[in-house]
Amino acid sequence: MEGLANIFPPEKITVIVNTGDDLQYLGCHVSPDLDIVTYALAGIADREKGWGIEGDTHNCLDQLEHYAAETWFRIGDRDFATHLLRTAFLQQGFSLSEVTEKIRTSLKVRVKVLPMTDHIVATRIKTPSGVMEFQEYFVKRKFQDPVEDVTYEGASLATPAPGVIPAIENADVIVLCPSNPILSIGPILAIPGVRDGISKTRAKIVGVSPIVGGKAIKGPLDRIMENLGLEVSPFGVAQLYKGLMKGYVIDQLDRSAVPKITSLGMKVLATNTMMDSVEAKIKLAQETIKFAETLT
Amino acid sequence: MEGLANIFPPEKITVIVNTGDDLQYLGCHVSPDLDIVTYALAGIADREKGWGIEGDTHNCLDQLEHYAAETWFRIGDRDFATHLLRTAFLQQGFSLSEVTEKIRTSLKVRVKVLPMTDHIVATRIKTPSGVMEFQEYFVKRKFQDPVEDVTYEGASLATPAPGVIPAIENADVIVLCPSNPILSIGPILAIPGVRDGISKTRAKIVGVSPIVGGKAIKGPLDRIMENLGLEVSPFGVAQLYKGLMKGYVIDQLDRSAVPKITSLGMKVLATNTMMDSVEAKIKLAQETIKFAETLT
Repeated sequence: MEGLANIFPPEKITVIVNTGDDLQYLGCHVSPDLDIVTYALAGIADREKGWGIEGDTHNCLDQLEHYAAETWFRIGDRDFATHLLRTAFLQQGFSLSEVTEKIRTSLKVRVKVLPMTDHIVATRIKTPSGVMEFQEYFVKRKFQDPVEDVTYEGASLATPAPGVIPAIENADVIVLCPSNPILSIGPILAIPGVRDGISKTRAKIVGVSPIVGGKAIKGPLDRIMENLGLEVSPFGVAQLYKGLMKGYVIDQLDRSAVPKITSLGMKVLATNTMMDSVEAKIKLAQETIKFAETLT
Repeated sequence: MEGLANIFPPEKITVIVNTGDDLQYLGCHVSPDLDIVTYALAGIADREKGWGIEGDTHNCLDQLEHYAAETWFRIGDRDFATHLLRTAFLQQGFSLSEVTEKIRTSLKVRVKVLPMTDHIVATRIKTPSGVMEFQEYFVKRKFQDPVEDVTYEGASLATPAPGVIPAIENADVIVLCPSNPILSIGPILAIPGVRDGISKTRAKIVGVSPIVGGKAIKGPLDRIMENLGLEVSPFGVAQLYKGLMKGYVIDQLDRSAVPKITSLGMKVLATNTMMDSVEAKIKLAQETIKFAETLT
């Protein structure tokens, strides 16, 4: 995403973001994925932690501890401003898209950022200890529970946010970023019209594998795939996108998976996919786009 | 209040607090008077500013400025925790009294703190520029507007919070603190049953003048009294409490007002009322209580 924003005019890029992880915290509407995408594009994200604003303080949370409030979801003081503003606007009747637009323009982000939907969709995780809200599973319990099932509650009644379907229809290239296909891309594809829109668009559709050498780049994807009986490999992920994705970028470490993935009807590019620097991000974005252009 | 808490077992003291200044800020229910009373009793108040928590940061507000939100009401990061907690509890159906109790016990405050009412009462200020919410008049416009009238919207339909009337009925001494009789004590007395309860209790009722040498100790009281055609003096304030207050503590500077105040049927103690140190607070509390005990 940041790589793409470096090689294209940012105004030409739209990021469609999962909101299945959204949570209510002390009356605030928190949209962690929208926020980290916006903060990253604004250049203020805390890259080390992977969420929140760089250099943020936690005095509000510290005081909340005095009140014995739950504080496992670590919201920083500046980050709270985003949630307070969002909540106030939602309470005034604005949509999540409208607030997202307000926040990204305030932060001078030129890439368009769209929530997948303005409706409430909640990713729920079924575990041996019961069904959990996403953040309870992910942050509070540090994704230690075996995952028996993942559902996107509310998805079937939701509609894509304004701009989502036109962005898909008018795109030249759609990149399924190396996110968790079950927890991050899955909820987006579950919104009626999105999967269908992607399968009908004339855009080149390319994905980047989130599994490298049998491990997730980050997060619990490898564990979840194993729990769900899926092959923990680029091939296992590619199967989830069958019929949707035309080209797949995998790491050179997984070069041996090329024939199996090709058998799914996809072209494969094996290259270095580890984005450990801005340069690496830009290089991967360039290679991915160049590869996408070769797709039919 | 802090003086009294030093000379009596704190558990024996109840503070009944004005909530007419409460405001909604970005969906948060802010109760500035409850908060400063609780913070002061907890020993964490920012004494220099007269509101908020000592040493608090303003990173949330700073970020809100990036979003072009109104930030004239200067809420600190720790202070936000109090408002977030209060709002979340109110949204869950708890009363303002219940949240206030939760906050004061969390902060280990042993003095009982009660909001005057659990209902919404809003102090409104009529000025040549229109009718204003209290905080708009007070904080945003720095009490520069001439005051034509003060009303307590919602007061006539409100009831005292649980514990308010019993505290008044069972008190040995009631101190009308040196607060603004129109903006701070006025709303409390406007709650049906409070003024009547005070006039019927067997407690000794004593006040401390907020006007010294023709000036308000702090805030706009002198200006407001002048605007409303009241005498800007301890006598002018005493007139507002006629029939309610039995004894009045005024500053020695205003000794000449003693005969006029006595003519209202009150006993008067003229002493040093400037509370510029903890010692001075304790001394004034001791003198006030000793004086109250001489009242019938």
